[in-house]
Amino acid sequence: MALQNNYDNETFFEGYQKLREREVNANNLFEIPARVALLPDLKGLRILDLGCGMGDDCMEYIRQGAKSVVGVDISEKMLEAAKEKNSDPNITYIRMPMEDIYKLEGEFDLVVSSLAIHYVEDYKGVLKNVNRLLVKGGVFVFSQEHPVNSSYGGGERWLKDENGIKTYSLLSNYGIEGERESTWFVDNVKKYHRMFSTVINDLIDAGFSIEKLSEPVATEEIVEKYPDYYDLYHRPDFLLVKARKI
Amino acid sequence: MALQNNYDNETFFEGYQKLREREVNANNLFEIPARVALLPDLKGLRILDLGCGMGDDCMEYIRQGAKSVVGVDISEKMLEAAKEKNSDPNITYIRMPMEDIYKLEGEFDLVVSSLAIHYVEDYKGVLKNVNRLLVKGGVFVFSQEHPVNSSYGGGERWLKDENGIKTYSLLSNYGIEGERESTWFVDNVKKYHRMFSTVINDLIDAGFSIEKLSEPVATEEIVEKYPDYYDLYHRPDFLLVKARKI
Repeated sequence: MALQNNYDNETFFEGYQKLREREVNANNLFEIPARVALLPDLKGLRILDLGCGMGDDCMEYIRQGAKSVVGVDISEKMLEAAKEKNSDPNITYIRMPMEDIYKLEGEFDLVVSSLAIHYVEDYKGVLKNVNRLLVKGGVFVFSQEHPVNSSYGGGERWLKDENGIKTYSLLSNYGIEGERESTWFVDNVKKYHRMFSTVINDLIDAGFSIEKLSEPVATEEIVEKYPDYYDLYHRPDFLLVKARKI
Repeated sequence: MALQNNYDNETFFEGYQKLREREVNANNLFEIPARVALLPDLKGLRILDLGCGMGDDCMEYIRQGAKSVVGVDISEKMLEAAKEKNSDPNITYIRMPMEDIYKLEGEFDLVVSSLAIHYVEDYKGVLKNVNRLLVKGGVFVFSQEHPVNSSYGGGERWLKDENGIKTYSLLSNYGIEGERESTWFVDNVKKYHRMFSTVINDLIDAGFSIEKLSEPVATEEIVEKYPDYYDLYHRPDFLLVKARKI
């Protein structure tokens, strides 16, 4: 399996850094609050963060009282930035693709993954290992591209009216799962589309019970400040799942 | 709450009857097989069928060995047809909107509902009563319009290419839940759109665990025989859920 590591591509890394440094972005407005709302009280927890990137979340989890955090990421550049910005005696960074966590031994109370799992082809394999690494009753919280978003495979994304206002999100091939190539700072970013039912059924088959789902959409307050985010009423960008090892 | 009973409208009832009598329709090809795949072994079960219509399913459940079936439907016309076509000493038909099942007392091993729950405004209320009427460990299987379908509130549904082939399903206002009016044989058919996360979270809150989801899409075999159903690769018509009372 050819594992993808765009985050070590110079163009990608710079574009990504600029995006995340913008004060107002979909992550800050939607993904982070929705994820935080699904997290249990972090005090004393041993946490595994899959696709930890520059380690901002790892550091935040320690600030919130986590006992320890292990951050896993495929990208050397990301982990260099993490060690520079977000070092802590209770954080361990491991360079490894998420697919390789079968190599990890350990025991965690919480596994978190933010917007990384849609890059993973072997979703079932990752779930099996997340389940193995969790204590009984342990929690898995992750966010991913929303299935109506991850189904996108090129072409137009929106239908606009004569004033350029997005009126419809264009949905196609939702029922055809698997690899998608798209352009995000660089060409050929590979992602894997899975239908909503597959995301959930594979979790159940791996030994999880579903506790809560979240599809953050726009709010009146946000749209008043940032009219562009009205789009998220038409189609949420993210799906978040809270599941528990049974 | 004004409860809706289009099935007693003459135009609606005739249109609906003709649709269901067609040998090839989305129900026969997709909804029924997907629902049957989620059902437990019916032998000896006491079953409640919410929105039983003309009772075809009630009769089929008896044929499969169910001990008894109670069929609930709002429509007098539908239940007249049911009593004519699908009478059995072990089937009881009750004329009642699904929202009124709080009036029912009884104990069921299985509650089934086929393509009716998207007409219900008070989803939480129905779930609460389904849960109450089930034995512990009892199963609830239902099908409904898929959320990317139920979000439709008028306007265009598809973008077509120059040859009239549907290339994109048009999605809008998915994030805005609530009433939708549309035309299906008659004007002003009222349905209620709920996001995927609401469908699932409300079940969990009502005391169910999620066992399996299903989003039937086209298959090569079906598309070869009925090319029109290629559309379902772009957007499934139905969502089906199997949940268990915990």
